[in-house]
Formats: sequence, structure tokens, C-alpha cells
Amino acid sequence: MSDAFQELKRRLLEINDLGAANALLSWDQATYMPPGGGEARGRQMATLARLGHERFTDPALGKLLDELRAFEASQPYDSDDASLVRITRREYERATCVPVDLVSELNEHQAATYRAWTEARPANDFARVRPLLEKTLELSRRLAECFPHEHVADPLIEAADHGMKAETVRKLFVELRAKLVPIVKTITDRPAADDSFLRRQAAEADQLAFGRSVIERFGYDFERGRQDKTHHPFMTKFSLGDVRITTRVRDDDLTDALFSTMHEAGHALYEQGIDRRLEGTPLGGGTSAGVHESQSRTWENLVGRSREFWEFFHPRLQAAFPEQLGRVSLDALYRAVNKVQRSLIRTDADEVTYNLHVMLRFDLELELLEGKLAVKELPEAWHARYQADLGIRAPDDRDGVLQDVHWFGGRMGGNFQGYTLGNVMSAQFYQAALAAHPGIPGEIRQGRFATLHGWLKSQLYRHGSKFTAAEIVERATGKPLTIEPYVQYLKRKYGELYTL
Amino acid sequence: MSDAFQELKRRLLEINDLGAANALLSWDQATYMPPGGGEARGRQMATLARLGHERFTDPALGKLLDELRAFEASQPYDSDDASLVRITRREYERATCVPVDLVSELNEHQAATYRAWTEARPANDFARVRPLLEKTLELSRRLAECFPHEHVADPLIEAADHGMKAETVRKLFVELRAKLVPIVKTITDRPAADDSFLRRQAAEADQLAFGRSVIERFGYDFERGRQDKTHHPFMTKFSLGDVRITTRVRDDDLTDALFSTMHEAGHALYEQGIDRRLEGTPLGGGTSAGVHESQSRTWENLVGRSREFWEFFHPRLQAAFPEQLGRVSLDALYRAVNKVQRSLIRTDADEVTYNLHVMLRFDLELELLEGKLAVKELPEAWHARYQADLGIRAPDDRDGVLQDVHWFGGRMGGNFQGYTLGNVMSAQFYQAALAAHPGIPGEIRQGRFATLHGWLKSQLYRHGSKFTAAEIVERATGKPLTIEPYVQYLKRKYGELYTL
Repeated sequence: MSDAFQELKRRLLEINDLGAANALLSWDQATYMPPGGGEARGRQMATLARLGHERFTDPALGKLLDELRAFEASQPYDSDDASLVRITRREYERATCVPVDLVSELNEHQAATYRAWTEARPANDFARVRPLLEKTLELSRRLAECFPHEHVADPLIEAADHGMKAETVRKLFVELRAKLVPIVKTITDRPAADDSFLRRQAAEADQLAFGRSVIERFGYDFERGRQDKTHHPFMTKFSLGDVRITTRVRDDDLTDALFSTMHEAGHALYEQGIDRRLEGTPLGGGTSAGVHESQSRTWENLVGRSREFWEFFHPRLQAAFPEQLGRVSLDALYRAVNKVQRSLIRTDADEVTYNLHVMLRFDLELELLEGKLAVKELPEAWHARYQADLGIRAPDDRDGVLQDVHWFGGRMGGNFQGYTLGNVMSAQFYQAALAAHPGIPGEIRQGRFATLHGWLKSQLYRHGSKFTAAEIVERATGKPLTIEPYVQYLKRKYGELYTL
Repeated sequence: MSDAFQELKRRLLEINDLGAANALLSWDQATYMPPGGGEARGRQMATLARLGHERFTDPALGKLLDELRAFEASQPYDSDDASLVRITRREYERATCVPVDLVSELNEHQAATYRAWTEARPANDFARVRPLLEKTLELSRRLAECFPHEHVADPLIEAADHGMKAETVRKLFVELRAKLVPIVKTITDRPAADDSFLRRQAAEADQLAFGRSVIERFGYDFERGRQDKTHHPFMTKFSLGDVRITTRVRDDDLTDALFSTMHEAGHALYEQGIDRRLEGTPLGGGTSAGVHESQSRTWENLVGRSREFWEFFHPRLQAAFPEQLGRVSLDALYRAVNKVQRSLIRTDADEVTYNLHVMLRFDLELELLEGKLAVKELPEAWHARYQADLGIRAPDDRDGVLQDVHWFGGRMGGNFQGYTLGNVMSAQFYQAALAAHPGIPGEIRQGRFATLHGWLKSQLYRHGSKFTAAEIVERATGKPLTIEPYVQYLKRKYGELYTL
């Protein structure tokens, strides 16, 4: 291998190590850091991020990437080496397009906006964040202008989901919304499933132990990870040998922690499954927000809310919580964990309504960026869209436009599409896995997940970021991304549950 | 303030943040990291250390320090600003004296030696590490040769205890040994205290809760720190607002965790007490190994093994462990926690014999560096000295020359003096505190520690690294370092305990 390639890898490894250290600073902040550590921690994280960014945008790196064009062309497209040069160049170009001053302005604005939001949401005070949000919109437009694009949202979407464009996603979402709104209406016009027995008290330790027993069966490797408690659950990674998840436990909800555990374990299975050869490079992580979410949703929903899954785990959950669930039948439990309802909060939404929450946010982002909607009109536009799609209206902005942190993280655009793209992809991947291995549902019924996990590893996980979402969908399923498998999945499952 | 000074502080803050992140990587490695994380973690820590070292030895930093000579001279010696320039220059000169190649060679050798030791010790295999130790000695001599010095050990000692020289320390230790050996002999010729009741089973959670209640009374601030479990206890710091301790708990020992907790809390009280103005600079940490150890030993021994302390805590420990200690009198408990015995293991040694363990190691280091002792003769020299000082001989090298990690950490010299210097200083500081506030023992009897803690903060802690050990002893006690207060303390306390 050439000296330039070795030098590229050396530089990337250093940047990787700074990023890994920063991820640990962040994990510790959310798990164990005492209150007094907060002030310095923010500064330390900013310092490491800056050092990493400086190194990644160093013109010497660009020069190496130029020198490596011939080397890249001499290797197969899907080889580790060509992929490393290709993906590093893409990210280098993205990082160096943005002037340093704009990066600083964005970072400062992000911190200020987040702080304001933490106070404005509990106070239901949209006016407080409105001027900040107007600046967010202006800065996001300026950020987009740094890149060539067709739609102003394209560069913002591509930051999370490379290769996805505003118009493609919008078209996909228009189709999906047209299918979903009537399904939701039909289901929610019928009597709701009873899930009151899930609201019973259950000890935290027992809930965590049950969740662990489930994700161990999935294939989550506790020798290369661990689980801790946080206010908001997340997955994080310090190396391919150390991929951690966090979980929130509600002592008056029997399955909230379980589904959150399966969700984060799905993200973690993806990262734990990446080929060790990609360790320490920009290829050694999941490829996009959408593909990542497809895996959390696969394990949380396609697997974790399936009848086969509960055929195996129903008696086990009963054994773990005999007082709460001793008299609850498999059928009742299965219906309860798949209860569909019109609701205000995205993160609590069921499988069917969830995408309506997401897509309306995506559309509002586009309208704001396109200048068709002003920030001051946002709260009312939010309510109107909830009325149209879900038939309900939040009583205030707290559970309306102030609900999610995303818009208060300094960027408008590209924040939400990954959630629904992930759901759509999850069904397409799962359909392909079932086509290759029709025995998967039978295995799940026996608490075995190795065939599914193995297929996902070989088709998706091991590749890390070598391929874009579109490439990986095509490679794994033989087709471009389409909503059909997802709509079929929902129709079949909920048609049966609600005898539609 | 000058631009150069601002630039110096900016650079130092960046180096500080890299160091803090590295400290967290290390803390996590010892507390929560899963086994799979180990390989990448070692590399990540090396990367951050290298980036910090590169920045600290950057000639631009040296140039700034040169430019700041006039500024430094214009400020009082004990001002924050003059001290920052002075101490940074001292550390810069120390860091830049050593050629980069030797730094790498030392780091690589250190890792190899440590690995070999982890296998050689359980196997009682000195032959395995002997050639590595010979190289350690050679590299340590080469390291010393990078600095001007009188004695070859001086630069190695100064790395941990700036201002201390081999001859000064040796002289102090010769005096101390002459006093200690006969005291130990007299005491250990008498019947040993009964401490068998401390070996009773006690639940980990109860032990930790009791330790926490004690150090909270000392003044350890859990809003700016936390306690976790590790195999080897330590104190670490990520900022002045986040100073953590770790503890080991033996479920068949009632006070092991308690004394270890008080010891680490002593280190932490020092760091938590540093003036916030020094945060993020080379002044924002304890000044030397010796002064640091003086504080851990103050809270562990001078306070934690005092009769006054136990007058307050004896009924509380009984209440926490009624089955184990319900029938144990204050006097019996006080004698048990101050039991003196000839023993083989330094870290388990009592207050009186402890320094004999330390000083013999210090002397062996000097003899090796001076070329008076060969590495192959070290095991036997160890046994001979234990025989002479403590009247016992280890059955093997495992509990002999392979006992401590220090010699297998890549340096020979400067590893041990801090422990005994700390004990000596602790008594001198404590004597000065009592002279200023004769009510301290009475307060301790009531479980109150604020006056002692306040005196230590104002005299020692707040200064961070502004002053050398010698300076801080002189400032706080009005006298140069002397063994007298320590010898008096031991004679008085153990004279009474053993009616000498």
C-alpha cells in the first residue's frame, strides 16, 4: 500500500480517537457526571470537537486525497480501500465547504438555542425561542448555500442521509401519507385495545433484567457493550469493541423500558456488526440516519412487536412479573403492545401513527426553508397539520412545536426524514431476509434470532459506511427504496389485529 | 493582561482539556468499560497523551514563555499570574529536555514491562521481568542524563516531588528509619492487638454507605464528585467541579473500604479545595506526590485512626453493623484499627511500619541507579532489607520484589519517596493546624471537621501547584520540613496504645 494511503489512515485514526474520547465525555455527562462537572465538560467537548474538525479539514488531508485518486481508481468500488478514499473525500468536501466563521456561528447559536429551549418548553413560551428559531432558519439557509444543490434542504438532508434529496423524500412521504391517514382513521374509529395492565408498577431491576435477557438473545454482545440508565435513551460507541446503550425505566410502565432497550440494541447490533477491518476509519460506523433507524425499528417493531416474538416471550414476561401479568393472555398482550391511538407525542407514538408525526415535521421544515412559512406561523401550522393528519390538537405549544429538541439544536432541515426512511427501509430489508430465509418467523417463535441477525450482518452491518443508503438497499434487496413492503406489512399486521 | 499571556492560557486550556478527556478514558477503563473496549482504549489514551505532549512541547509555547519574562517579573511571586508563568516554564523545560525518541522508547517499554509483570507476578517469575527491569534501569539513567543534576536520581525524584533531591530525602529517611526500627521492634515484641472482629462479613452496600457518611462530614462534596468501585482505589479529576474517588470493598473486612475511602477522599478534598481561578491551568492540581499523600494520610490516619474520630463514630459503626460490632468497645475498636504488625505487603501495612516498606524501596532504587546493586541481586537485597527492618522474609518474589506495580511502570527512581514524605508532612501540617486551632480535636469528637478542613483549604488546598512542597511546608508551618512532628505523633499515640 502506498505511503499516502498509510498516512491517510494514520490521520483518520487520530481524528477517530478524538471523536471516541468526545463520545465518552458525552456518555459520562448523561450517565454518571456529578452536577459540578457540567461547566468544564461543555468546554472539554467543544475543545475535542474543534481539534478533530481542524484535523479533518487540514488542507494536507485534501492533498492526500488528491494524490490517492489513481490508487482509488485502481481498486474495486466496493473494496475497503477505494471506499475509504471515496467516503473520506465526500466527508472532507462537505466539511471544507463551510467557512470556519459560519461553523463557529452555528456552534454558538446551537448552544444558546438549546439552553433557551430547556427553559421555554416547560414554560410553554414559544415567543422566547422565536427569534432564535428565526436565526436558526437564516443560518441553515446560509449553510445550505455553501453546497451546490437543487433544493435548499438537500445539503441539510444529505448531512444525515447522504444521497437523499428533498424532492425524492417528499414524493415518498406524499405516497406514504396518502396510505396511512385512512388506515389510522379506520383503526382509531374502532374501540381501542386495552393496555391498562401494562401501566402496573414493576421494579426497575426486574425490568432491566428482562430487557437484558431479550437483547442477549438478539445477539447484543455484553462483552463489547453495556447498558446504563439515562433520562433519554441512546446508543453510543467508543470502538467496535465498546458499543453501549442506555435506557430509561418507568416504574409504572411494564414495557416502556423493554421497547426502548430493543430499539437501542438494534442500533448497537448494527455497530457491533461492522467489520473489524473498518475500525478507526470513517467507514467504521453506520451509514446514514435512515439505515440506522431501520435497524432500531427492525428489532423494536418488526421483531419486538411481532406475534412470533410474543409467543416465545409472553410466558417469560409473565414469569418475571407474575402479579402484574399472570392473568393476561398472549392475545391480550400482543394487542396491548400494538395499540394504535391518536396521540400528541412523537416518541410515544405507535407503529402506525408514528410516521405521521415525522412527516409533518419534515414538511414544515421544507416550508420554512422554502420561505412558504414564517417562524411566527409555525405553532399554528403545527396544530393545523395535527388536526388534518391525526384529528387532534395539542392544548399548548409545549406538546406542540416545542416538543422535540431537534429544531432547537441549531439546524432547520434534515432533522426528521431518517425516522420514516428507517421504517420504510426496515420492512424492505425484512422482506428480503424472509425471502432468503423463510424459517425466520419459526425461529423467532423459539426465541432464536441468529439467522436474521446473521443475514443483517452479512447484508448490512459489516459494510459500515462503505455504501450509501440507496446502495445498501439495492444491494441487500435487489430493488430501489419503495414504500410497498412497509405498507403491506402494516396492512397485513393491523388488518389482522383490527380485522380491517 | 498581555496578548501573550492570554495566548498562553488559551494553549494551556486546550492541553488541560486533552488531559481531562484522557483521565476520563482511564477512569472508565477502571470502572465500567466492557472487556472488548480494552484494545482501542489503550490506543485512544496514547493518542490523546501524544497530542497533549506535542502541544505542550510546541516551541511556540517556549517562545511565549520567553516573551512573558518581563510580565512575570512585574507580578508578585505568589500571584496567580507569575506562578502560572513560572510553573509552566518549569514543566515546559522538563518536557522539552527529553528527546522525542527517548519518550517513545520509554512509553513502549513501559507498556511491555507492565504486561510482563501482570503475568510474572502470579507466576512468581522474576527471571521473566529481569531483562526488562535492566532496560528500565538503563532508560531511567538515560532519562536522568537529559537533565542537569547532582545525583542521578534527582531528575526522577523531581518529576513527582519537585525540589526534593536524593541526598535530602536520603538524609531524612536515615533519621526516620533510625527512630522507627526500634519502635517497631518494641511494639511487635508485645502481644498483638485483637482485630479479628473486623474480619466479619459485612454487606458491600452498608460498607459504602458508612464510608459516604464519613467523607460527607469531612467535607467531600458529592455535587462535585462521585464514588465508584474499582479493583485498585484511586482519585481522579476531570475539572475542579468533578473530582472522583474509587473504592474497593472486601465483604470479609469491615474497615478496609472505610480507610481506603477516607484515603482517597483526602486526595479529593485537596483537589476540590483548589481555587477556581486556577481551573484549566497547570496550577489547578495538587503540587507534588508528597503533599498529595500528606492529605490522604491526614484524613485516613491523623483523623481517621484517631481516638477522637472513633469516640464519635464508634456508636455509629456499631449501629451500622450491630451483629458484627454490637459487643465491641470503643477501646477495642480503637486498638484494632491501630494494630501494628510486621507484614510483607506495603499497601496493607499499619501507620508505624508503613514507612519502613517505603524507605527500603527508595534505598534500593538509589542503589540500582548508583550502580551499587545489579538487577539480578535485587530479589535477595529485598529479602535482606525486610529481615533487617521488619524481621521477616517473604516466602517468594511474588510478595517480594514483584509486589508493587511501580517498578514495572517503566521508571526506576522517584517512585516511592512521596509516600513517606507525605506521612512526614502530614504531621507537620497537622501540628500547625492544631497550634492555630486547638479546638480541632474537640470538634472531631463531635463529628465536625470544618475548622480543620478550612485551615487546610486556606493554607494548602487553594494554592494548587503555585508553590513547591518545600515552599508550602514553610508557608503553612513556618518551618522547613522536619521529621520531628511525625516522630512525636507516633511516639505519643503508640506510646499510649502500647504503654511504651
